Amino acid sequence: MQMTDLIAKKRDGGALSTEEIDFMIRGYTRGEIPDYQMSAMCMAILLRGMDDRETLDLTMSMMRSGEVLDLSPIKGVKADKHSTGGVGDKTSLVLCPMVAAAGLKIAKMSGRGLGHTGGTIDKLESFPGFSTAISEESFFRNVNDIGIAIMGQTADLVPADKLLYALRDVTATVPSIPLIVSSIMSKKLASGADVIVLDVKCGDGAFMKTEEQARQLARGLTRIGRLAGRKCAAVITDMDQPLGYAVGNALEVKEAIAVLKGEQQGDLLQLCLELGGCMLTEAGLSWSMQEAKLELLKTIEDGSALWKLASMVQAQGGNPAAVYDPSLLPAAPVVLEVPAAAGGYVSRIHAEQVGLVSMHLGGGRATKEDAIDLSVGVVLRKKLGDKVEPGESLGAIHAASAEKAAQAAALLLDCYELRPEPVTRLPFIKDIIR
Amino acid sequence: MQMTDLIAKKRDGGALSTEEIDFMIRGYTRGEIPDYQMSAMCMAILLRGMDDRETLDLTMSMMRSGEVLDLSPIKGVKADKHSTGGVGDKTSLVLCPMVAAAGLKIAKMSGRGLGHTGGTIDKLESFPGFSTAISEESFFRNVNDIGIAIMGQTADLVPADKLLYALRDVTATVPSIPLIVSSIMSKKLASGADVIVLDVKCGDGAFMKTEEQARQLARGLTRIGRLAGRKCAAVITDMDQPLGYAVGNALEVKEAIAVLKGEQQGDLLQLCLELGGCMLTEAGLSWSMQEAKLELLKTIEDGSALWKLASMVQAQGGNPAAVYDPSLLPAAPVVLEVPAAAGGYVSRIHAEQVGLVSMHLGGGRATKEDAIDLSVGVVLRKKLGDKVEPGESLGAIHAASAEKAAQAAALLLDCYELRPEPVTRLPFIKDIIR
Repeated sequence: MQMTDLIAKKRDGGALSTEEIDFMIRGYTRGEIPDYQMSAMCMAILLRGMDDRETLDLTMSMMRSGEVLDLSPIKGVKADKHSTGGVGDKTSLVLCPMVAAAGLKIAKMSGRGLGHTGGTIDKLESFPGFSTAISEESFFRNVNDIGIAIMGQTADLVPADKLLYALRDVTATVPSIPLIVSSIMSKKLASGADVIVLDVKCGDGAFMKTEEQARQLARGLTRIGRLAGRKCAAVITDMDQPLGYAVGNALEVKEAIAVLKGEQQGDLLQLCLELGGCMLTEAGLSWSMQEAKLELLKTIEDGSALWKLASMVQAQGGNPAAVYDPSLLPAAPVVLEVPAAAGGYVSRIHAEQVGLVSMHLGGGRATKEDAIDLSVGVVLRKKLGDKVEPGESLGAIHAASAEKAAQAAALLLDCYELRPEPVTRLPFIKDIIR
Repeated sequence: MQMTDLIAKKRDGGALSTEEIDFMIRGYTRGEIPDYQMSAMCMAILLRGMDDRETLDLTMSMMRSGEVLDLSPIKGVKADKHSTGGVGDKTSLVLCPMVAAAGLKIAKMSGRGLGHTGGTIDKLESFPGFSTAISEESFFRNVNDIGIAIMGQTADLVPADKLLYALRDVTATVPSIPLIVSSIMSKKLASGADVIVLDVKCGDGAFMKTEEQARQLARGLTRIGRLAGRKCAAVITDMDQPLGYAVGNALEVKEAIAVLKGEQQGDLLQLCLELGGCMLTEAGLSWSMQEAKLELLKTIEDGSALWKLASMVQAQGGNPAAVYDPSLLPAAPVVLEVPAAAGGYVSRIHAEQVGLVSMHLGGGRATKEDAIDLSVGVVLRKKLGDKVEPGESLGAIHAASAEKAAQAAALLLDCYELRPEPVTRLPFIKDIIR
């Protein structure tokens, strides 16, 4: 088998066989197929597409390129979620404790990631002492005992994706549905969960700009998940503004705690109810979305969701008192409110730019080696549609210094667009794809 | 400017600007843009195409990546030709002396090339002592004095094409009209001729399988040549069998001499008259193709074309006596006729396979380092449509040993298809594109 023949086949619109896809992924992972052939193939796949059988084969072949987790020592239904990424996305911090309290098993692998804030792992490290570098043994034991554990992604999980994603990133071959689907699903399948729900964002600040693109991706993801024998659902949500109010690591943990305490309503809770509802219904623990959502709300009311978070923090070396007293979490020395120059209704918040404010304050990573300041970030006071009086605060900057705060305040002002007339928002939850 | 942005632009069907194309070719030639980005770009160009302006920009940018010959010290109209390559293609050996005798100036750069036989340079080295490693000074002097000189392609002629072609070859990105056009025309433009004619082959044994593909390529080549300010024409010919009778270096030189002596008619002469006719009319030396062809035939009748060949051989250190006495050229020790098992009419000769017979005998190169046996090859006795009696020879194998000859004879038999009824051939010259 020759890689050039495979590239030519895809170039001419043909479908690659199971053997051909396996040859390609094995060869590339072993370094036998050079980057310049793989990048030409990625561009051919992007422009010619792949059918479901090819995408499934690609996903399974990538999954098999490294370690595949066997979660069978864990009793019960294991659930996992994935988000295509957004600004202020602290969903896992709220969702995982809620569904664990509702009876699902959460054995989650998370990454640090690059971006405006850290990944879920960085955020959790706001709890003094918390560690995700736990052994597989204690990971399994914790899930069995308390229903929830979060572990740092092992280096050997889908090495093919690490190589391929780095290549796609520098060859303009990222936005291809089959390549995105195989990248996401190979990791989710390798992580071993029975139920996988996907949070697919669309809109200006998201990777999928239109609802139709997001719908296509969601269909691709759930189809491949089901073909691989897992329960799958996807929620399509609007990313025309940051999710919730906080953007920044410890600030997002504090917001998550507020939601789990029942102190905050809004889009973040709404999204967690939809995603959690999908998890419980797919797992067969609830009969309907309505029943599932009531079940989940009960975990807030009775404190069991917050208790799950505290138990996980405790089991992984952190101080669980911080769950009940968030003042024990890192806090920035300078907090600066950013007043609006004129009044009106918020007609737009540039999500991507709000992320850059957090980045500017030191809350995110540009390269893998960068250190993160867990305490800094932004807490929005106003969201889309909100009425603003002149001089009222649009948001609070949490910074390491007054100088940094002043710079960030100017940036935050640019994120907002106001207009005189009231603004009507389109529904935040666009669709659920099963 | 970022290469990833340029790839994304072409991927999405956009047109690259003059500056963007120049950035890309400069960066790639200097090694600043890696192969994996360039191969993704080549695939995007292949699948999305390029308009005329982009293709011209690409061609000019590649041309400027190295030395550009200034032929202004040569008086008169300078002409050059290019062939997309075929089995038994000794066109240059016949055409160049003819048009030089008719008054055009031939200052030709040639390559050695890989393939079933050597390139024009290898073939000319059949003349004992002949060298194409001449100085630019004597190259210019020879063209001014005798009207013709052939020089080995300098290493610095279009280095971007050398890099790019090697990459395209291993990434299945060869068959793209804008990429082929820029590869061919950048070299032709850098070689400095005023008039460029192109021999575009189509058919089974050729790179362009259909006449329509060949026509598209021919249109692309002539359009870009004219946009770059040169006179340009292309002849589309059928490559359903080898050109002429001989395949092998010295054997082809002998055939070329036979045509220049007026001893052989047929497709090779016909093609040279068409190409030469295009040259003379484009150069303004003839009013019509009819007049030009008569002029060219006169150079055979009066011996002036043969004399041009002899003068060139003499001026470049070879023995001109071999032009008049071809027995002085290399000859293989074994000549084996290959009799047909049954009679009939020749309905097909697999050109590509005949090339492989020559390769098998040692007449071609698989890698740049391979040595070539100039004496070996095949001389066909029968061509398409010819009647064959049982036991009559289909061709003669010229080999280094009886064993090699026997193996080659078996291979040659497989190249022929015969059938009982007479065979009508389609016209050999398909079209002329100006």
